[in-house]
Amino acid sequence: MAIEPSPAIAALIRALEALPGYGPRSAQRAAFFLLAPESQKKLQALREALDGAMHVRRCRLCRTWCENELCAVCSDATRDRSLICVVESVQDQMALDASLSWPGLYFVLSGRLSPLDNAGPGEIGLPELAERIELGLREDGLREVVVATSYTPEGDATAYYLMSMVKKRWPDLRITRLSRGLPSGLEIEYTDLASIAGAVEDRRGL
Amino acid sequence: MAIEPSPAIAALIRALEALPGYGPRSAQRAAFFLLAPESQKKLQALREALDGAMHVRRCRLCRTWCENELCAVCSDATRDRSLICVVESVQDQMALDASLSWPGLYFVLSGRLSPLDNAGPGEIGLPELAERIELGLREDGLREVVVATSYTPEGDATAYYLMSMVKKRWPDLRITRLSRGLPSGLEIEYTDLASIAGAVEDRRGL
Repeated sequence: MAIEPSPAIAALIRALEALPGYGPRSAQRAAFFLLAPESQKKLQALREALDGAMHVRRCRLCRTWCENELCAVCSDATRDRSLICVVESVQDQMALDASLSWPGLYFVLSGRLSPLDNAGPGEIGLPELAERIELGLREDGLREVVVATSYTPEGDATAYYLMSMVKKRWPDLRITRLSRGLPSGLEIEYTDLASIAGAVEDRRGL
Repeated sequence: MAIEPSPAIAALIRALEALPGYGPRSAQRAAFFLLAPESQKKLQALREALDGAMHVRRCRLCRTWCENELCAVCSDATRDRSLICVVESVQDQMALDASLSWPGLYFVLSGRLSPLDNAGPGEIGLPELAERIELGLREDGLREVVVATSYTPEGDATAYYLMSMVKKRWPDLRITRLSRGLPSGLEIEYTDLASIAGAVEDRRGL
């Protein structure tokens, strides 16, 4: 006969529980936080932000998330349009761009090849990538596709598949992959063994 | 020149950052989680839950959060209406009720007396409690008010203030406070010293 939260509060707790990092207790805490009179602005801001999120769509060229037909990168005249970096996700794209090391454009896949999760070439957007490459070759003098998938089994499989696709269809197009090796600023002593092994295997001439 | 998230995504990250337990990184993670196509139902559910939260108001009698004029407890005919338990928050009320130990009604304050936070008697709802007590005496044969504030300096101050108020205005009304003592199911060895001291001070005859 203990009190149940009223339906609106219960619905709010359930909805918050779906957020990453939240469980039943923390979702309840967040719900009560949002319901408190002094949080009214925050509740309102979150409502409006979620409404705004409904207008987020994919950039026509690179498929990143944005609100216009073209994203800020694809419509940036200072970017080198002859270079396309293929990433697994918008998050990866943002991390990569934050490193200020990439002067070109991007193409954002919907994850990576993973047969166990039913993620085949069609699911992750490889047909769209092929179209994008055709367009780049036709209009922007595309000269290099860089594969920025992680060095994990699925990331390797995706990179390998992409390499085969490019080499077969456009044998003259350069395709590369981000190098593997030791992380910057970390003692070798504290580096994981797989990274050390990769750095040994891919060691470069000096 | 790194990519900024588009305005709608940035607004969503900022709004999520206000939630308890979220920082910039986890808010970004949650935003991308909600934006992913497979989360569309969750995004929708959260939007609707926040809309529903706008209809949550306070119960006319006990000031807990509910969607109707009276909450489930105050409109429950099996509750003993001659007993009112005063709690600091809806969360405290739910915890107390989950213990299945309280047969009466509640009155929910807006926190506790805390001069440093500008929370005086008016701010936490003591005038409304006085009105509720008058109503209870008039209509429900109110015979006991139980103060369920925590054993902290502010909880103590609130309990003391309530006791003075009741004793002065309604000298015949019984006013009690939840007992302090050892927690159930925990070895004394692992119990905090303040709780042990409280249990010694409030020891009861056998």
